[in-house]
Amino acid sequence: MKALHDTWYVAAIATEVDATAMFHRRILDTSVLIYRKGDGSPAALHDRCPHRFAPLHLGKRVGDEVQCPYHALRFDASGRCTHSPHGDGTVPARACVRSFPLVERYGLLWIWMGDASRAAPELIPHYPLLDHALPTAVGHGYMHMGAHYELIVDNVMDLSHVDHVHGPLLNTAGHLSKQKPPVRDDGNSVLVRWEWQQQPPMGLFAPLLQDPSGPAEQFVQVQWTAPSNMFLTVGAVQGSRDYEQGLISWDFHLLTPESETSTHYYFVSLRNFMVESAEFNAMKLKNMIDTFKAEDEPLIAAVQAEMGGADFWSLKPALLSSDPAPVKARRRLAALIEAEAARRSQALVAA
Amino acid sequence: MKALHDTWYVAAIATEVDATAMFHRRILDTSVLIYRKGDGSPAALHDRCPHRFAPLHLGKRVGDEVQCPYHALRFDASGRCTHSPHGDGTVPARACVRSFPLVERYGLLWIWMGDASRAAPELIPHYPLLDHALPTAVGHGYMHMGAHYELIVDNVMDLSHVDHVHGPLLNTAGHLSKQKPPVRDDGNSVLVRWEWQQQPPMGLFAPLLQDPSGPAEQFVQVQWTAPSNMFLTVGAVQGSRDYEQGLISWDFHLLTPESETSTHYYFVSLRNFMVESAEFNAMKLKNMIDTFKAEDEPLIAAVQAEMGGADFWSLKPALLSSDPAPVKARRRLAALIEAEAARRSQALVAA
Amino acid sequence: MKALHDTWYVAAIATEVDATAMFHRRILDTSVLIYRKGDGSPAALHDRCPHRFAPLHLGKRVGDEVQCPYHALRFDASGRCTHSPHGDGTVPARACVRSFPLVERYGLLWIWMGDASRAAPELIPHYPLLDHALPTAVGHGYMHMGAHYELIVDNVMDLSHVDHVHGPLLNTAGHLSKQKPPVRDDGNSVLVRWEWQQQPPMGLFAPLLQDPSGPAEQFVQVQWTAPSNMFLTVGAVQGSRDYEQGLISWDFHLLTPESETSTHYYFVSLRNFMVESAEFNAMKLKNMIDTFKAEDEPLIAAVQAEMGGADFWSLKPALLSSDPAPVKARRRLAALIEAEAARRSQALVAA
Repeated sequence: MKALHDTWYVAAIATEVDATAMFHRRILDTSVLIYRKGDGSPAALHDRCPHRFAPLHLGKRVGDEVQCPYHALRFDASGRCTHSPHGDGTVPARACVRSFPLVERYGLLWIWMGDASRAAPELIPHYPLLDHALPTAVGHGYMHMGAHYELIVDNVMDLSHVDHVHGPLLNTAGHLSKQKPPVRDDGNSVLVRWEWQQQPPMGLFAPLLQDPSGPAEQFVQVQWTAPSNMFLTVGAVQGSRDYEQGLISWDFHLLTPESETSTHYYFVSLRNFMVESAEFNAMKLKNMIDTFKAEDEPLIAAVQAEMGGADFWSLKPALLSSDPAPVKARRRLAALIEAEAARRSQALVAA
Repeated sequence: MKALHDTWYVAAIATEVDATAMFHRRILDTSVLIYRKGDGSPAALHDRCPHRFAPLHLGKRVGDEVQCPYHALRFDASGRCTHSPHGDGTVPARACVRSFPLVERYGLLWIWMGDASRAAPELIPHYPLLDHALPTAVGHGYMHMGAHYELIVDNVMDLSHVDHVHGPLLNTAGHLSKQKPPVRDDGNSVLVRWEWQQQPPMGLFAPLLQDPSGPAEQFVQVQWTAPSNMFLTVGAVQGSRDYEQGLISWDFHLLTPESETSTHYYFVSLRNFMVESAEFNAMKLKNMIDTFKAEDEPLIAAVQAEMGGADFWSLKPALLSSDPAPVKARRRLAALIEAEAARRSQALVAA
Repeated sequence: MKALHDTWYVAAIATEVDATAMFHRRILDTSVLIYRKGDGSPAALHDRCPHRFAPLHLGKRVGDEVQCPYHALRFDASGRCTHSPHGDGTVPARACVRSFPLVERYGLLWIWMGDASRAAPELIPHYPLLDHALPTAVGHGYMHMGAHYELIVDNVMDLSHVDHVHGPLLNTAGHLSKQKPPVRDDGNSVLVRWEWQQQPPMGLFAPLLQDPSGPAEQFVQVQWTAPSNMFLTVGAVQGSRDYEQGLISWDFHLLTPESETSTHYYFVSLRNFMVESAEFNAMKLKNMIDTFKAEDEPLIAAVQAEMGGADFWSLKPALLSSDPAPVKARRRLAALIEAEAARRSQALVAA
C-alpha cells in the first residue's frame, strides 16, 4: 500500500505479546508474526512460510524458534531456517523468512517495515515522559479502526471538532473553533496549540480542581511527527496561567496502517494528578477509549464511506481556521512518501 | 453510474420525510439528504459536508438549516453555508453543498440529479389520477430491490410472466403469453396492452364481480415513460366489454436507480372499487408488495446473479412475442442516455 | 476461469441427483443444472434460460424436460426448446440452452465443460476398483472448500504434511518427511510412493492388526491424473512385506474447480477389510471428512488467504524432498492448459 515504509510503526503494545504468544498483526498490508525469545527479547517475522506460504503463527514455538504448521520447517528469530525434517535435512537457499527490525520502547513494540539497513533505533520518536512513568499513572490502549490512518490524523490534529463531537467529559464549549491556533512546523514535526478560559472547566478536570464550577485556564497542544504519531498535552489551572502548576494529561495517539481502509490505533495516556491511583488510571484509559469509540470512530468511518475511495484532495475540501495543522501533516507525509519512492527508484537504477 | 441524469426520479414517498427527519437515500450512486423546512417544503442536498466530507444526515437541524456533525458548519436548503463557528466566522468559497431540485407531487418527492438548469417541473410524469385520489383508495409502497432497475422494467413491461410466476391473486391462466400484444411507441412513451376473456376471473377481481366463477372480460395495459416509470391499468368486467363499467386497478411502478445493482422501487396503487374502505386499501397494497417480494423479486435477483455483471445485449437474448415492449423501452432509454452524454460532451467543448 | 476445459470433472455424486431433482452446481465459474430423465439417465444443461437468463433450476420438471420459472420456455435434455407458450408458439433460433456431456460412472456424474466433440467417455479416469465395489465397502463424500483446487492437489500429492498436520488416526510419526519418495511421471499421470516401518502402526489400522502395538510395514501411494484427480492407496501389514496380505484403504480425491477461489471436493473411499460392515463403512467415511475439515481445510484456506491472489510461482516457493510430485502435477497441468489455449487459438484462426 501507499505509505511510508522507512519509518518506525508501533506493531503492538508490549503486553500484547507474552512469553508464549505467536502474535500476529497485519501491517502495511503485510502479515507479521511477533513473539518473544526465552530472554524476553521480541522478534518479528513475515508471517508466511517460504515453502508453501502457510501462516507461521498457526504453527508452534520450539525454544526460540517457530515451526511451520504445514510441513514443520523451523525458523529462528532472524528468519533463518534452522531445521527441516525433509529428506536429508538440507535447507534450500530460498527457505528463509524476512525478519523485521523490532525495538521494545515505552511499553510498545516498534517495527520497521522498510529497508532494514536504515532502521536506526534513534529514529523512534523521543518520548522521554514515557521513560519513567509510574505504573499507576500510565495506560496503554489499542483499537482497530475501519478507516484510513490519515483520516484519524485529521481528527486529532484539528481539535476544533471537540467543540461539536464530544460530550461532557471532553466538553470545550466552543472555545477551540473560534481560534486560529498557532502552528509551528519545523520540518520534522507539526505542532498546534489552543489556549482559552472556560467556566466550568472541562469534565476531565473539573472534579479535581479547587473550584469545579469556577473559571479555569485551559490549553491543548498536539505535536505530530511523521508518519502518524501524535503527542497531546491537555491542561487546566485555576488562579494563574502557570499551566505547570495545574492538572496535565499527556496522551499519545500512535497510528499504524493495516490497509488502505483500516488502522491500528494505539493510545498511551499519562497525567500529573492522582498518579498513585491504579483505579483512576484504569478508569481514565477506559473513558478515553469509550469516548473515541462512541463519538469519533462512527464519524470517521462515515467520512471514509462517503469519500468512497476518492483521493482527499480530489474532493477539493473547503478549509477552515483549524485546518493548517492537519493539512501541513498531510503535505509533509506526502513529501516523505514521494522522497522514499524516488530513493527506491534510484537504488533500482544503481543496481 | 450509467443512467439518465436529466430527468425526475422519485426520491421518497412524501410521508417518509416528516417535519424533523434528516432522511437520506443513495440515488444514482450519490448520497442525498432530504428534509422539510418549517413551512413543510422539502429540500434535497448532497449528503456530504464540503469541509471534511461527513454525512450531513448525522448532524442536526437548526431551524431550516442543517448542521454538520463533525465541525458544525451550517447550510441552508440551497446548500449555502450560513454559519461557521471557526475563526472569525468567514465562510470559504468552497464551503457550499450541492442542492438538488425537489418537487412534491402525487404524494411523492421527485428529485432531479442532473443539470439543474433543465429541471422543469412540467417534465414530471403527468398522472392526473393521483391529483384527486381519495385517501382510502390510494396506497404508497416502497421496496429496496437488489437488482438493476432495467431488469425490473423488463419484468413489468412483459406481463406474460404473470401467467407463469404468480399465484391465485394475479392468476391469468396463460392468456397473456399466447398473445402478441399491440405496442404503441410514440417516442416519449411505450404502451402495451393485453385483452382476454377468463373464467373464473383473476383472484384480484373475482370476489367483487357479480359472478365470481363466471367468465369476465379482462385487460391490462402498461405505459412506460423514461427513464423507468410504469403506469399499469388492470380491469375486469362481466356481461359487456365496456371496461369503464367494470373494476379497475391503477398501479404506478416507479423505479429509481440506487447503484448498478440495486433499485428503489416505489408503488402507488389506486382503484375504482371499495374506494371508501381503508381496510381494503391497506390489504390491497400489502398483497401487492407481498406478491412482488415473494414471487418477482427472488427471480429478478437470480437473473441478475446469473448475468454476472454482463451487458444484457452481449448475452444475445432470444426474444418472444411479448418482448417488443420491454425492448423498445430499453432501446429508447439507451438512446436518451447516449443523447445526454453527447450533450454533456458538447457543453464541455463549448466551455 | 483459467483451467482445463477439455476434460472430465466430477459434477456430482450420483445419489445427489435423485429422480425429481433440479440439482445445480457452479463448475468452472459456469452454472450447471443436472437432472435425471424418466429412464434414470442424467443430463446437464447450462443453468440459464436463453430468453431472460433466469436459472432453470428454479423452474420445474415436465416429463423429461425442464421449464423456465420466468416465462415457461421448455427445454429437453439436449437443450433444444421444445415448447413456447408465447404468441403462436414459434421458437426463436436463439432459444436453445447449452448442454454438457455427462456420464454416470463409479457412482459419480462426470461432466465435460469444454469442446463437446472431444468428450470421449474413455477419457474418464480408469478406476476398475470402483466397478465392483461392495455397497458396504464403498463411501462417497462431498465437501465444499474455500480454496483453489491446485492448493488441494499440493496437499494430497505431498503427504509429508501428514507427519505434522494430522492426529492419531492418520499418525505417521515423521516417517514420510525424511524420505525422498520415488516419483513416476509417465506423461499422463504422476505417481509418488512412500514405504516405512512404524510402531505402533497408524491409528487407522492398528486396532485391526494382529499386534496393535507392534511394528508394521506401511505404505502410501498417490496417483495424480490431470486435471485434479488423485487415487491414494494406503496399507499396513505385519510379519511380512507382502502388502497384498495386509489391510488396504483406497481413497479417491477428485477435485472440480468452482471458481478461482473455491473447489468441489469429492471423496470415494474403499477398503479390503471389514467390507461387510455398513456401520464401519459410514464411520470411516465420516472420520476422513471430519479429519480433512478439522486439520487440512483451515490450513489450506489460510495459505490461500496469505497468498492474497498472487500466482504460486511468483512467490518463489522453497522446495523440499516431497515436492517433486506436486510440482510435476502443477507443471503437467499448466502445459495441458497452455496446449488447450493454443488449440483454441488455432481453431479460431482456421475458422
